[in-house]
This record gives sequence, C-alpha cells and structure tokens, in this order.
Amino acid sequence: MGKGKTAAQCSHASLEAFRKAERDKPEWVKSWEAQGTQKVVVRVESERELLELFEKAKKRFPAALISDAGHTQVEPGTKTCVGIGPAPESELNELTGKLKLL
Amino acid sequence: MGKGKTAAQCSHASLEAFRKAERDKPEWVKSWEAQGTQKVVVRVESERELLELFEKAKKRFPAALISDAGHTQVEPGTKTCVGIGPAPESELNELTGKLKLL
Repeated sequence: MGKGKTAAQCSHASLEAFRKAERDKPEWVKSWEAQGTQKVVVRVESERELLELFEKAKKRFPAALISDAGHTQVEPGTKTCVGIGPAPESELNELTGKLKLL
Repeated sequence: MGKGKTAAQCSHASLEAFRKAERDKPEWVKSWEAQGTQKVVVRVESERELLELFEKAKKRFPAALISDAGHTQVEPGTKTCVGIGPAPESELNELTGKLKLL
C-alpha cells in the first residue's frame, strides 16, 4: 500500500481501538493520555501473521482489525491493519515488542 | 517522513479531530459513522500551507494540528499533520477537495 493508504488504515485502526478502550479500559486511556498519547507503528510480514496477532491481542487488550473495502490498491476484504491499545507499555511490549517499526 | 512516522502522525490527527467532533459536532460524527467512517489523506507542499489550512479549517470544522516532539526524523515542534472532521463531505471538499492524495 502507498503512504496515504497506509496512513488511512492506521488511522482507522487507532481510532477503533481507542473507542473500544474508552468503553472497556478507561483507566488505561487516562494513563496513556497523561503520558502523551504515544503511538508506535510496527509491521508484520503477512496477512496470516496479522490475524494471529489480532487473535492474541484481543484476549488482553482493546483491539481492532481493519478490513479494506478494496476500491483501490488491495482486494475487497483484505485485512490491512490491527490497532491495539491504549494499554500499559510493558504489557503491550510482550506482544509487539519484537516487531519491526514500519 | 517515512511511512510509519506518517501513519502515526495521521493517527494522532484523526483521533484528536474525532474527539473534538464528538464534543462539538456529535451529529456530524453520527452521520459519518452511518456512512462507513471514510478517511481521506491528502498532502500540502509546506508547513506554511499546513498552518494556513488549519487556520481556515478550525473556523468551520473540528480540527487538530499535530506537532512532533522531534525525537526522530523531524525537528522538535515541527507541525506534521492536520486532522479535519468528521464533517459533511461537500463542505469539507470546499476546503480540501483540490489537494492531492498523499
């Protein structure tokens, strides 16, 4: 995906994950806001790895899986991005700390 | 900025603009959600153009200007991104419709 498309997918993911967190983990949202609303964008190597990450993430964290309508650049229904958190950094790092930055 | 950094800045901008919209324009948020939460990422050619866009945008729409802490890639305080809306598409296009997609 190009830079703009990637940015839009990440924006979808972070907004959806945030809204789940507001509902399910308001104390994590408060703490994250007090620390400057950090966001880190990392990458996986395949759609399968993305789905596995999402399955693990949603057991412990607010998490959102984004599918694309596929009007441009990717096939309809392609899973493009997962948003996780806000959540405590040390816990989140157990899941994503070894992934490479995008 | 690289792809990951750009995605993070756009995520900041869309989340901040969304939260302003939730507070100030809940009817626009509802309508945007009913239509699939579309996001469009466009670009400007300079920080000056970005600031001018923000000044115009905030008079009519929920809008957020993002500054970067500058730990990586850009100087501290650099304005990286503006988030605008959710807002009615036709009104928003009056402001951003001529900008190029990122």
